[in-house]
Amino acid sequence: MLRKDNFFQKGDFFMAIKYKWLAGTLRDLIKKDVKNQINKLPSEQELCRRYHVSRQTVRQALNLLTQEGLIEKRHGSGSYITGHSANLSDDQIAILISDDSNYIYPGVLDDIQGTLRKYHFSSQVHITKNETYEERKILTKLLSAPPRGIIVEGSRSYLPNPNLDLYRALQKKNCRFVFLHNYYQNFSQIPFVKDDNFSGSRQLTEYLLSQGHTAIGGIFHSDDLQGAERFQGFMETMRNQGLPVPDSRVGWFNSHDLDHLQRFQDTGFLKKIVQDSLESCTAVVCYNDMIAYFLIKELNLAGYHLPDDMAIGAFDNTYLSNSQILTLTTLSHKSHEMGTAAANMIIQQLKGIPVTFLEVPWTLIPKGSTPDNLLDNL
Amino acid sequence: MLRKDNFFQKGDFFMAIKYKWLAGTLRDLIKKDVKNQINKLPSEQELCRRYHVSRQTVRQALNLLTQEGLIEKRHGSGSYITGHSANLSDDQIAILISDDSNYIYPGVLDDIQGTLRKYHFSSQVHITKNETYEERKILTKLLSAPPRGIIVEGSRSYLPNPNLDLYRALQKKNCRFVFLHNYYQNFSQIPFVKDDNFSGSRQLTEYLLSQGHTAIGGIFHSDDLQGAERFQGFMETMRNQGLPVPDSRVGWFNSHDLDHLQRFQDTGFLKKIVQDSLESCTAVVCYNDMIAYFLIKELNLAGYHLPDDMAIGAFDNTYLSNSQILTLTTLSHKSHEMGTAAANMIIQQLKGIPVTFLEVPWTLIPKGSTPDNLLDNL
Repeated sequence: MLRKDNFFQKGDFFMAIKYKWLAGTLRDLIKKDVKNQINKLPSEQELCRRYHVSRQTVRQALNLLTQEGLIEKRHGSGSYITGHSANLSDDQIAILISDDSNYIYPGVLDDIQGTLRKYHFSSQVHITKNETYEERKILTKLLSAPPRGIIVEGSRSYLPNPNLDLYRALQKKNCRFVFLHNYYQNFSQIPFVKDDNFSGSRQLTEYLLSQGHTAIGGIFHSDDLQGAERFQGFMETMRNQGLPVPDSRVGWFNSHDLDHLQRFQDTGFLKKIVQDSLESCTAVVCYNDMIAYFLIKELNLAGYHLPDDMAIGAFDNTYLSNSQILTLTTLSHKSHEMGTAAANMIIQQLKGIPVTFLEVPWTLIPKGSTPDNLLDNL
Repeated sequence: MLRKDNFFQKGDFFMAIKYKWLAGTLRDLIKKDVKNQINKLPSEQELCRRYHVSRQTVRQALNLLTQEGLIEKRHGSGSYITGHSANLSDDQIAILISDDSNYIYPGVLDDIQGTLRKYHFSSQVHITKNETYEERKILTKLLSAPPRGIIVEGSRSYLPNPNLDLYRALQKKNCRFVFLHNYYQNFSQIPFVKDDNFSGSRQLTEYLLSQGHTAIGGIFHSDDLQGAERFQGFMETMRNQGLPVPDSRVGWFNSHDLDHLQRFQDTGFLKKIVQDSLESCTAVVCYNDMIAYFLIKELNLAGYHLPDDMAIGAFDNTYLSNSQILTLTTLSHKSHEMGTAAANMIIQQLKGIPVTFLEVPWTLIPKGSTPDNLLDNL
């Protein structure tokens, strides 16, 4: 009896060592799989064969990993990597965004953080103010205790970014990235979620053309990628209609102008654009609702009667497009799409699911700033 | 006798047909070779073998092509494609350049046209005024009678170019391109000759750092590629010294500002940059001599004592850097290098010689605007 008891105890002991050893081996396999974009563990049968262990040992090891939150079993399908660490408090996602208080940002942040919470990832928000200098300070701090992933709205995204040294260092520490709204041209092959700006701009321009406008101007952001893309959609649509746009009809502003507009309501650059670029135009494609909102004020000051003297279209469908003075024809997304997609794409990477990029389409919402009666008046 | 004469005449007649036929075949081969980047015809022996003709026929055909200017024989080496057409008046190269009257342009144009003339290519100069609308008008005209090659200084080269439809149509008509000073990011794989702006900017920034400056600002062109590259060289050099540059210390101007500066001496944008970007700086990296020249005037107006209150470095080493008010530390090329290289690269393409790109290095020329005694004064 004594011998038999001892034998059983010894057997249990070896069993325990075995499945813990296997669990450790599988933890390493999970890391390797995620790197190689494999989301699913081998079948129980395959694990038995590969590691020369019994079905029971495999099941015990998989149960342990499930309890730790590293995998989830799906009935009849197998064991899938969840993207979580054994320690849930390590599952931090950092969000670098230019603003959190204004315009589209509170909504986008809600969507990102809500989605992350749903999948048990916590998040910290860092405000870059659209400045690469702030971005650098934040990335430097993050590098000392890297989060599992970072969702980044690039700062001055159309310029060569000076912080790629830090982005690359974070990548080496296994940190994953998703770019939001834009990406850096000199830091390619990173997943991103952004608007389909080219097609949006084409839609808006075609709408203005369909209303009979031929002399259409544009106002775009010169140092973010969205500006360049919206410009390109506008220019190529006009060109394809046999109406190439004189360079003087396009007005440009930069991050510095935008900052002064938001902080001091300094509309100096818009006053110049009204004078230098829009004089010969009957319609204008605006970078976004905010620019259009302040442009309306400038046009009124300059004696324009709106909407008759100048049709205006913009991007973002924010509260600024529903102002009492004049409602704005603007492009819109399905609600929540962008932020939700960004959060999902960072989690998918942690799970080992391959992600590339997503371009969210725009839908045109015609409102008061583009009256339909132009052709009748001509 | 009669028969023999007849026989000889008949023989001569067939000989003549044969070598003319071979010359025609070789004219086609030359076109194919140039497309496949092959500059040299097969040896006489190989031509005999390939076309089942005598050495004499081959030599007569090659002599004809040499007389036509299509090939040149090099003693002991073989027959090389010259890049010329049979009709010398077809050997036109178009030059699209933003300006021909001012600054670096007369010199660059001289170098291009002189080199083309030397190799018996004629050229027509077209002025784009750095406007894609003008560029489009010129390309449309050229498309109706395409030149053999076009040397293009891109207009607003950092923006998506709206004329790629015409560039591609000209390519289909066998027209070759070389970009000069810049290139279009959305029209890649075209040979180009430009300055090594990144390294130039690094040199200049390192020089200012070596003089003890730490708070260095920059002024750059926002819509041409050189602006972005010079900005990048500046930003990364500062960063590598542990002195990342606050975004507010970089001032930007665009083609519209530059146009108003040249036409109306409108320095409004420089006045703003002095106020908003340079206040905390002791030195500044300027996009080029012209900007630096007008900046000196603005700084004087704002009460700066130069060169002590602000060291200034720039690019291009033009006459503007030797002004009597203050000579400018500036970056310089070997004379004639850029224009000569552009002309050679277009001819090489016509000859079937593979070309890729050339980045011309800069050399720093320290002058009065960066006094050496800063460290002593501190």
